Amino acid sequence: MYLIIGSGLSGIVIAERIANVLKKEVLIIEKRNHIAGNIYDFKDENGIFIHKYGPHAFHTNSKKVWDYLSRFTGWYPYFHKVRAVVDGIEVPLPFNLNSIYKAFPPTLAAKLEAKLIDSFGYNEKIPILKLKEFDDKDLQFLSNYIYEKVFLGYTLKQWGLSPEKLYSSVTARVPVYISRDDRYFQDKYQGIPENGYTAMVENIRDNPLIKIELNTDYKDIKNKLKFEKLIYTGCIDEFFDFKFGELCYRSLNFKPKTYDVEFFQSLAQMNYPENHDYTRVTEYKYFLNTQASATTVSFEYPQKYETGKNDPYYPIPNDDNNNMYIKYKEEAEKLDDVIFVGRLAEYKYYNMDQIIARALEVFETVF
Amino acid sequence: MYLIIGSGLSGIVIAERIANVLKKEVLIIEKRNHIAGNIYDFKDENGIFIHKYGPHAFHTNSKKVWDYLSRFTGWYPYFHKVRAVVDGIEVPLPFNLNSIYKAFPPTLAAKLEAKLIDSFGYNEKIPILKLKEFDDKDLQFLSNYIYEKVFLGYTLKQWGLSPEKLYSSVTARVPVYISRDDRYFQDKYQGIPENGYTAMVENIRDNPLIKIELNTDYKDIKNKLKFEKLIYTGCIDEFFDFKFGELCYRSLNFKPKTYDVEFFQSLAQMNYPENHDYTRVTEYKYFLNTQASATTVSFEYPQKYETGKNDPYYPIPNDDNNNMYIKYKEEAEKLDDVIFVGRLAEYKYYNMDQIIARALEVFETVF
Repeated sequence: MYLIIGSGLSGIVIAERIANVLKKEVLIIEKRNHIAGNIYDFKDENGIFIHKYGPHAFHTNSKKVWDYLSRFTGWYPYFHKVRAVVDGIEVPLPFNLNSIYKAFPPTLAAKLEAKLIDSFGYNEKIPILKLKEFDDKDLQFLSNYIYEKVFLGYTLKQWGLSPEKLYSSVTARVPVYISRDDRYFQDKYQGIPENGYTAMVENIRDNPLIKIELNTDYKDIKNKLKFEKLIYTGCIDEFFDFKFGELCYRSLNFKPKTYDVEFFQSLAQMNYPENHDYTRVTEYKYFLNTQASATTVSFEYPQKYETGKNDPYYPIPNDDNNNMYIKYKEEAEKLDDVIFVGRLAEYKYYNMDQIIARALEVFETVF
Repeated sequence: MYLIIGSGLSGIVIAERIANVLKKEVLIIEKRNHIAGNIYDFKDENGIFIHKYGPHAFHTNSKKVWDYLSRFTGWYPYFHKVRAVVDGIEVPLPFNLNSIYKAFPPTLAAKLEAKLIDSFGYNEKIPILKLKEFDDKDLQFLSNYIYEKVFLGYTLKQWGLSPEKLYSSVTARVPVYISRDDRYFQDKYQGIPENGYTAMVENIRDNPLIKIELNTDYKDIKNKLKFEKLIYTGCIDEFFDFKFGELCYRSLNFKPKTYDVEFFQSLAQMNYPENHDYTRVTEYKYFLNTQASATTVSFEYPQKYETGKNDPYYPIPNDDNNNMYIKYKEEAEKLDDVIFVGRLAEYKYYNMDQIIARALEVFETVF
C-alpha cells in the first residue's frame, strides 16, 4: 500500500498516477478538513469562487502539464493581470512601457521609452539592477523609482525583512518589461479551471483505489501505519521532529470582505507596495468572470509563521534557512522508502505547473 | 471621578483610555445632542452617510494611530481626491503635473513639465513662493497662475482675509507637486470607517464606566460638579469667561441638497476658488462608494464665527489671535487639575490623526 501525506497538488497527482497507472491502492492522510491544499476554493453565497489560501492563476509553458490537467478540467481562458498602486496611480506589473506612461508625464515617459528601446531593444525584460548600472541618469532614475516605489515596500511587507537579508535573486528578478504587454505572465497556456480548483482536484483523485482520510494528522497515527512507500508532502522539519531546528516560513492572513457593489477594483489583483499593511487585494469574480451584483475581495496580510497556529506558505530564501534545509535533506536521502515532494517537503517555492511537473517526474523516476 | 468636557475625538479617546486602562469612571459633558464632535455623521434617506460638519477623509502615517482606531472600526479603502474648477476646468489638487496638462495646452504643459523636473527633480513638492523666486519666466508664470487662480480666491472665501493678514505659513504651504499622484494625501494609511464615524466613536466609548450627558452646557453646571481631573476640550476663552477677549474662529455653514441623479460631480470634493460664494461641494456617496439612485451634496460657505450662534471650526492663524491665546494658555497652566486638549482648547488645527496621537500622548504623560 502506498501512503501519501497531504492532498495538495503534489500528493494528489502522485496518487492519481499510482492508482491509474500502477492500479495500486493509495491512502492519503490530510490534516485539514478538505483536499486540494492551498489551491482549495469554494463558491460563496454570490456564486463567486473564493480561493481560500490566496489567488491562484494557472499558467504554464509545458504542454505536458497543460494536457495532463486538461484531462480533469476545462478551462476558462484568463490572462492574469496585476497592477500596483504607486503614488496613487494604478500601474501595470511587471513595470512596462504602459506603466511608464501611467506613472510619468508625457515628455518624461517618451524620453524613458526611447532610452530603454535604444539601449536594450523592444520586448526585453531588463532587471532593474542592470538598469542602475547604466551610466545614464534617466535610466538610473527609473531604476530607483521602481526599486523604491514598487519593490522595497512590498518586500518589507511580504517578507518582514529588508532586501539585503534575502537572496539577491529576489531583487535581481524585478524587471522593467520593454513592452506594452500588461499580462503578469507570458506563458503559452493560461486559464482558470472552469469549475474551480477543488473540482479539478476532485477529478484527479476520482479513482476508487484512492482513499483519503481528512482531519488526520500524520504524526498522531504514524506508528500504526504500514506502507510500501511513503510520499511525504508536509514540512520536512516536522517530519524529523525539528531535530535541526525549525525552518522559517512566511505565512499569510487573508481577510475576506463582501461589498454590495458590482466591482470593488478594476482587475483581479491590486498590489499596495506603499499603502496599508496588506500587500495585495484580490477580487475573485474576475477569475471566472462571474456575474454578480455583489463582490468579494480578500486583503492579504503577510505574517510570521508559527507552527500549529497558522499555515506555512513561503520558504524564506536566505542562507540560514537553506543550510538548515540541507541537513534535513541529507537525513531524508537516507530513507529509501520515503519520498519528499513539494513546497514544504523540499523547502522550495513551486508554481502550480512546476509542482505538477515535479510530481509527474517523481512518479516516472521512482515508480 | 474624571470629568471630560466635549465628546469629540480628543475627549472620547481620553475617556476610552481612562475607562479601559485605569478602570475608572468617566463623565462626559456634551453641549450638542449627539456625540462625536465635528466628525459626527448619519445615514440619510438614501443610505448615504452625511458628514454633518463637513467632509472627513481619514489619513495617517502613524501605525500606532491606525492600529488604535482599527480596534473600533473596519475601513473602506478610500484615497481622498480633490479637484478645483479653474477657468472652468477640473484640475487635480494639489496642483500637479496632471493639473498642468489639464489647465494648459500640450506644448506649454510639456515645457513646464520639463522645467519643473529639470529644476527640482521628479516627485517633489515645491511651494509656489519658491517657484516664484526662480529666475525663469515660465516657472514664474506657473507660480502666479496657481497663486491667483487656485489660492487667492479660495483664501479670501475661506478666511475672509487677504493672504497678507494670515501667517505666511498658510501661503507658503501651497505647493506644486511634481508628480502624477492625484491623491490629496500621500499618507500610508487612508480610509473611511466602514460604518461611519459616529459608529466608530460609539465603539470607542463602549464601556459602562463612561457616562455621557448630552444637551448639557458645562458652564451651566460647573459649580455642581466635583472631579479628580477635568479634561476640557471646548473653547479656552470661554472657559476663562473671555477675560482676555474673544478668540477668533472661522465658522462654516453647510447647505446640503439631494438631487435625483446618480452622480452630481465626478468625485467627493470639488473646490471653487473662482466661482460662487461656497468654497467647495462635497458629494458624500463617494466616501463609502454607496450605491443609490439619488445623491446628496453639501455646499460649504465659510462665515464669521459668532459665539452661541454658530460653531467654531478653525483657529485663525495670525498674531492677534496667537497673542491672546498665549495669555489664556498661561492661565490654563496654573490649573493643575484641568487639562486642555484639542482644536478649541489649544487653539490649534489638528487633523483627525493628530488629535488621536495627541489624546493618546496626553493620557500616557498625564495619567
